[in-house]
Amino acid sequence: MNTETDTAAEKAHAAPSEDAHFIVSVIAAAGDHDWPALRRQLSDLDPADIADVIEHVPLETARTIAKMIGRHLPTEFLAELSWERREEILPQLPPDYVGRALGELDTDDAAAVAADIDEKDLGRVLAAADEDTRLAVEEALSFDEETAGRLMQREYVAAPEGATVGDVIDRMRVEAAELPDVFFEIYVVDPMIRPVGAVHVSKLMREARDTLVADIMAPIKALIRREMDQEEVAHTFQKYHLASAPVVDEAGRLTGTMTVDDIIDVISEEGEEDLLKLAGVSEAAQTDSVFKSVRARAPWLAVNLGTAITASAVISQFQGSINQLVTLAILMPIVASMGGNAGTQTLAVAVRAIASRDLTESSAPRYVVREAMTAVSNGFIFALVLAAVVGFWFKDALLAMTIALAVLINFACAGLAGILVPLTLRRFGADPAVSSSVFVTFVTDCVGFLAFLGLATIILLH
Amino acid sequence: MNTETDTAAEKAHAAPSEDAHFIVSVIAAAGDHDWPALRRQLSDLDPADIADVIEHVPLETARTIAKMIGRHLPTEFLAELSWERREEILPQLPPDYVGRALGELDTDDAAAVAADIDEKDLGRVLAAADEDTRLAVEEALSFDEETAGRLMQREYVAAPEGATVGDVIDRMRVEAAELPDVFFEIYVVDPMIRPVGAVHVSKLMREARDTLVADIMAPIKALIRREMDQEEVAHTFQKYHLASAPVVDEAGRLTGTMTVDDIIDVISEEGEEDLLKLAGVSEAAQTDSVFKSVRARAPWLAVNLGTAITASAVISQFQGSINQLVTLAILMPIVASMGGNAGTQTLAVAVRAIASRDLTESSAPRYVVREAMTAVSNGFIFALVLAAVVGFWFKDALLAMTIALAVLINFACAGLAGILVPLTLRRFGADPAVSSSVFVTFVTDCVGFLAFLGLATIILLH
Repeated sequence: MNTETDTAAEKAHAAPSEDAHFIVSVIAAAGDHDWPALRRQLSDLDPADIADVIEHVPLETARTIAKMIGRHLPTEFLAELSWERREEILPQLPPDYVGRALGELDTDDAAAVAADIDEKDLGRVLAAADEDTRLAVEEALSFDEETAGRLMQREYVAAPEGATVGDVIDRMRVEAAELPDVFFEIYVVDPMIRPVGAVHVSKLMREARDTLVADIMAPIKALIRREMDQEEVAHTFQKYHLASAPVVDEAGRLTGTMTVDDIIDVISEEGEEDLLKLAGVSEAAQTDSVFKSVRARAPWLAVNLGTAITASAVISQFQGSINQLVTLAILMPIVASMGGNAGTQTLAVAVRAIASRDLTESSAPRYVVREAMTAVSNGFIFALVLAAVVGFWFKDALLAMTIALAVLINFACAGLAGILVPLTLRRFGADPAVSSSVFVTFVTDCVGFLAFLGLATIILLH
Repeated sequence: MNTETDTAAEKAHAAPSEDAHFIVSVIAAAGDHDWPALRRQLSDLDPADIADVIEHVPLETARTIAKMIGRHLPTEFLAELSWERREEILPQLPPDYVGRALGELDTDDAAAVAADIDEKDLGRVLAAADEDTRLAVEEALSFDEETAGRLMQREYVAAPEGATVGDVIDRMRVEAAELPDVFFEIYVVDPMIRPVGAVHVSKLMREARDTLVADIMAPIKALIRREMDQEEVAHTFQKYHLASAPVVDEAGRLTGTMTVDDIIDVISEEGEEDLLKLAGVSEAAQTDSVFKSVRARAPWLAVNLGTAITASAVISQFQGSINQLVTLAILMPIVASMGGNAGTQTLAVAVRAIASRDLTESSAPRYVVREAMTAVSNGFIFALVLAAVVGFWFKDALLAMTIALAVLINFACAGLAGILVPLTLRRFGADPAVSSSVFVTFVTDCVGFLAFLGLATIILLH
């Protein structure tokens, strides 16, 4: 066993941000305004680790780090920060450092950083950057957030159809400084600069120098338009297993590239977003204050209050029945709760299928049938189980039959609501994840109480 | 506007699987056993599109396609299928075709396909494959599913520290046939084949032929061990924005590489899994039958039945109180429902933070405090609102005060349960997403009923 390798192998694990002692010592050094210590602790770390540390310390410490030693940190750490934390520390960094950072970063990262700079500071920062950087950043910011035009990298390597492998390699050696840090493909373009094919660099390198790039190029699997939403871009990358793809303007001319590392963040963000939306949290970040968290969750709680009161209004119609048979009050939450869970299950499957483009207009009927049948099947199973439990508990066969029927009805409604609500929301252009669960639970609560108390009133009390 | 480019630009959108007419015609041709038509429809498509079509047709059609024209399809389509569908159609493909596929695919894809072949058929298929393929597949299958050893690509390019850029490029030209289709980096290794640095191919190509690779290599940001779980691999890739990383054995020797396109699938799968687990669905796939769906959802519904009955048992302790004041039965679901939602919100934030490694041992106390304060703050707000509504509805100030107190208590418990339950599950090595919501809802239901009915009995009925 070789210790050096062991350490390297463990390096991937023992990230500084997960080392509580290290974090405590950084917080202490910042508290003491001990900038030589801070600089010693941070400036030799990988930019991703520096960002990670700044992400994991209290806001006050992060601001102190930026203010005291920010100018000595490698500019790449800015690209690795979450936008929330970046927005918080950017005002503490000197404008000339930020201007230099914009120039050094790839254009996609530069645009992301620039988007978080306070509008009144942006002019000063861009003045400190060079002309090319300024133009690239301004162009990127002219596109909507979360579109390819904002996320794309403006540097790319293109070659005309007549170029040979040797031509391309020679040109890359000469223009090395202007190329992106890392790229995966070169694009073969027609005279109008429209991409007609791609050659992966690992392929380019294996070919003889006099081979025409046009002879070894692969067809472009997918073109990205600048206006395309990031979620759609991510879906395209995933489907075709792309490492990078060309981005084109309205006339189909090559204007940049998107690389898979930007897409990874998009995919994991979108997955998280769906999870949080379904749970009724409008947004959440690790650095959120209590105030922000309250604000992100209160709206959905308010809607839930409204639906819960409506469900109670349903119950209040059956006061007389409950007065006659208090058992109804004891059992009614079971019917609502079981239906709510069946509905949530269907909803989670539906939202996931919509996100992965499995559930489309054409497959919708099949999904609806399957979900309805699944819900009714589970409804049968649990109606029987619950009837047995209730029959045993209260020694009342009619009561057992009543609750079984109510559960079956509620499961059927739960299955239909779980799939139809997100489909309907999508049909009307709304996000199927965002308000589905409140609708679905509303349906299962109301139907649950209404079916059980209504059937009980008819079957047991007349 | 140029029509050729327009069509190419739209190609990314109008996937054949989303064209209902096309799908219908494929199903019809399969129904008629019209293999020339099937072959005409499918064999010129991109492998990703072929897979997509096979994914979107009924199982019967998919089997017919595999049986009739499978041998004429490009073998890459097997790598693009979901494992569920692949498992279903593999028995319909001739063993020699599958054997050839294993040889043609990159080793990571070959291992994934081999894992879905029925054990009794695998021998026959591997016999049809070449020796190298057989060894690579058998080695891959010796690792657990969802580990780097299973997912990694066994082909890689390595160069000794003394090699020059020219040496590496020349060797790649000679050995072109044995190299992976596409790769991102070459690894510089010491005499024990332990990776000491990496050179991105786009960098290699720009350098002069006599440059030493050791002079231009970048440090290895992270080593992947073969036993590492895919979720940890994905986290490492995301954190360091890696396009590929070396995989090493116990002695630190290079044994393969992992590339970012495999990680994309892992990340989107893990995000989906958390969403489904939180909703109580053990697994779900688009091709699942009703029977499978029922089986995937029934267990959690059974657990929920148990907790719902327990909550009802809590209510049954207060029969006397409900008999005296039926209003309690009307209002008690509001208290439980609001608490349940507050708990689910906290839980979603916690599960997401655990998945993204924001919520660690060291940051846990901060999270618990923030979540508890958020829950109590929202508790105050909605206690006041609900008191106003109930006071207005029932004209009873004491009742309004009672429900407000109960809501506040339930919110506090919801916040604590929402963060402590997943943390405790993780501490004991369990998946924090998988059974959290049943625990949390159990807590909020029981506490909700107990607090409201208990306080009402003390305050209103004595």
